[in-house]
Amino acid sequence: MKKARPEGRLLYAQSGGVTAVINATAAGVIEAARAKGVPVYAAHNGILGALREELIDTSKESKAAIAALRHTPGGAFGSCRYKLKSLDANRAEYERLIDVFRAHDIRWFLYNGGNDSADTALKISQLGKAMNYDIRCIGVPKTVDNDLAVTDCCPGFGSVAKYTAVSTLEASLDVASMADTSTKVFILEVMGRHAGWIAAAAGLAGEGADAPPHIILFPERTFDEAAFLAKVKATVERVGWCTVVASEGLLNAEGQFLAEAGTRDAFGHSQLGGVAPVLAALVKEKLGYKYHWALPDYLQRSARHLASKTDADQAYAVGKAAVDYALAGMNAVMPVIVRSSDAPYRWKIEPAPLSKIANREKKMPASFLTRDGFGITAAARRYLSPLIQGEAPPPYGKNGLPQYATLKNTLVARKLAPFSK
Amino acid sequence: MKKARPEGRLLYAQSGGVTAVINATAAGVIEAARAKGVPVYAAHNGILGALREELIDTSKESKAAIAALRHTPGGAFGSCRYKLKSLDANRAEYERLIDVFRAHDIRWFLYNGGNDSADTALKISQLGKAMNYDIRCIGVPKTVDNDLAVTDCCPGFGSVAKYTAVSTLEASLDVASMADTSTKVFILEVMGRHAGWIAAAAGLAGEGADAPPHIILFPERTFDEAAFLAKVKATVERVGWCTVVASEGLLNAEGQFLAEAGTRDAFGHSQLGGVAPVLAALVKEKLGYKYHWALPDYLQRSARHLASKTDADQAYAVGKAAVDYALAGMNAVMPVIVRSSDAPYRWKIEPAPLSKIANREKKMPASFLTRDGFGITAAARRYLSPLIQGEAPPPYGKNGLPQYATLKNTLVARKLAPFSK
Repeated sequence: MKKARPEGRLLYAQSGGVTAVINATAAGVIEAARAKGVPVYAAHNGILGALREELIDTSKESKAAIAALRHTPGGAFGSCRYKLKSLDANRAEYERLIDVFRAHDIRWFLYNGGNDSADTALKISQLGKAMNYDIRCIGVPKTVDNDLAVTDCCPGFGSVAKYTAVSTLEASLDVASMADTSTKVFILEVMGRHAGWIAAAAGLAGEGADAPPHIILFPERTFDEAAFLAKVKATVERVGWCTVVASEGLLNAEGQFLAEAGTRDAFGHSQLGGVAPVLAALVKEKLGYKYHWALPDYLQRSARHLASKTDADQAYAVGKAAVDYALAGMNAVMPVIVRSSDAPYRWKIEPAPLSKIANREKKMPASFLTRDGFGITAAARRYLSPLIQGEAPPPYGKNGLPQYATLKNTLVARKLAPFSK
Repeated sequence: MKKARPEGRLLYAQSGGVTAVINATAAGVIEAARAKGVPVYAAHNGILGALREELIDTSKESKAAIAALRHTPGGAFGSCRYKLKSLDANRAEYERLIDVFRAHDIRWFLYNGGNDSADTALKISQLGKAMNYDIRCIGVPKTVDNDLAVTDCCPGFGSVAKYTAVSTLEASLDVASMADTSTKVFILEVMGRHAGWIAAAAGLAGEGADAPPHIILFPERTFDEAAFLAKVKATVERVGWCTVVASEGLLNAEGQFLAEAGTRDAFGHSQLGGVAPVLAALVKEKLGYKYHWALPDYLQRSARHLASKTDADQAYAVGKAAVDYALAGMNAVMPVIVRSSDAPYRWKIEPAPLSKIANREKKMPASFLTRDGFGITAAARRYLSPLIQGEAPPPYGKNGLPQYATLKNTLVARKLAPFSK
């Protein structure tokens, strides 16, 4: 006997900063839903597309295009930085979402983001009940910041971690070869406003006091100028050169971002995203060493060409699991990654309640930082190393470029009047 | 009848800024020389190692280690920024080199660098004759700047070109997905103090007015603030976002580097290597758009993980050819790349006299830039596209990192007194 096709549609939305593998999650969602015969809409530009009734009909995309999402960086349907206010402050927005869901028979809502998005998904599931509309909400984890609670790690992080470790290694080989007559101190600035997960991953580039990176500067530790300069000097004198990896979120003793405290541009504005030049100027001023610095910015989180296979696989798996959970009738949960072994690395996906994830932030354990605060411990290596393992390169064209997917992104006809807050 | 082994040793030295593939040239040199039974010394830290009599015995390295050089970035024997003065100004340095060569029976000198190094190799070959010492000097091309005369392109350039095009594409996919509520203008700063070859390569990321990069800023064109801002505005209004690639060598109307003219750091120093933040501040100030900028610095020239196969193959081939030329008795020549076809791309190696290369600089043809100066033409694409074709990824270890070679770099016992200039 043929099993009945579940009724209704599934809506998938991407939220917040995109990653090298968030589209792999989209591929997991769409392929799993297609296998079950469930039509998938995607919100254009994240939750804003849901509010504006800008819904993309993914059935217009070919099987090959959806498969190609698995190796395409960025957010294929558009994402946004937009946090819904609390239910009390703006109930109208939540009600609008339910209206849109009802109009398009959306019965499953999959929200792919961080802890804000987990909170939103949780609230929508609650309001659905209050408004007597049957909607299953699943949070799907994504963030390069690796700061979600419960899950062992966050899809997106492993790839930026691999990019950071490889870049640290490669640039250090460059600096090492030239240090006799050229640059002695190289500073790499990495993302991480509030937590040093990405900076910590740079530590995988080498092991031992003489291997790069020689110094990591974490947002978890207040910047100690004297200790920093002393370690730079000692490293240059012993090794001949010094690689520093600095988190953009590094704070001075007054609790200010070092990036903002130091440099002002031609117009007198403080320059954001620039802790590296501040540190470089300090090294030059106090120690006289020639320096170079790099700030890869978006390059690090979009570098699909250097994705971690572990990360890409997990990103796909959480997408697929989210569909399984939704169609099984689960609500207000997130598929999280559970680690059962460090080496060999073993993991599985399990559901966790959104209430345990929403608005929480996972901090880096204090045991991951060395006593002097400039490096990572063996415990950190055990945790981090599996996350950058394996390669999953995109296919390349004859033109030498990765063949990334381009979607049609066909919008569904509107059924409602425009929404005004 | 067995052919007699050529007598004497070959000395190989790396010069100037290193690249993702200069070690592939070293592998070509050493493997070709080993095949002929010729022992190879490598100068430690380039020409300084020759002056200081710091010579590395490459016979101490395993076959596997030399083969691994082919996929290892940086300069495995050390390089330096050190230009010998003119013969008149410091004849003693040249004589010292000949003394060192004589002491170690160096009969072939292969100098792997740019046009300065070609000049040095040429002068040493001349002085050898004057001092009645039989030395064959071969220049071996290397520079990410792609500014050597005669050769169609320079080993090292194709890989940084590929890195730049791929990074431009990937970061643009990121920006495109978020532009509705976040960054609208993304600025990528690339290397190229005097010529815009690397910036031009970014143009391969896309084709057509709406594809990234929307604006390339070349050192060949004086920065026109009004035209730049107008194009940024028009692009954001039409496409929704705008990717800008800026060469570090961008000049203002007064002929100053824009990077130096704009920003000063906390100590009042002008910040070098920072045209991107200057442009970003300008965009914010005049147009009000949210921006991000990236400055990959050494990451771009050491990114062996994303090397162009064409480039890696050519780097190896010039090393091998240099040995063939040297052992065939040629002198004061460089193996150069000759292109016989754009599509399919065909190339071969030929010898060219160093006198035609020394101290010359190849400029980018005016026909490569679009009329408005913000893009590349079809002629530029025909030239550039083959150089980024093909992938040659390094092997990765179980730890997720590329397995780059580490050499023993065993120094040969000194035979001379220390050199003092």
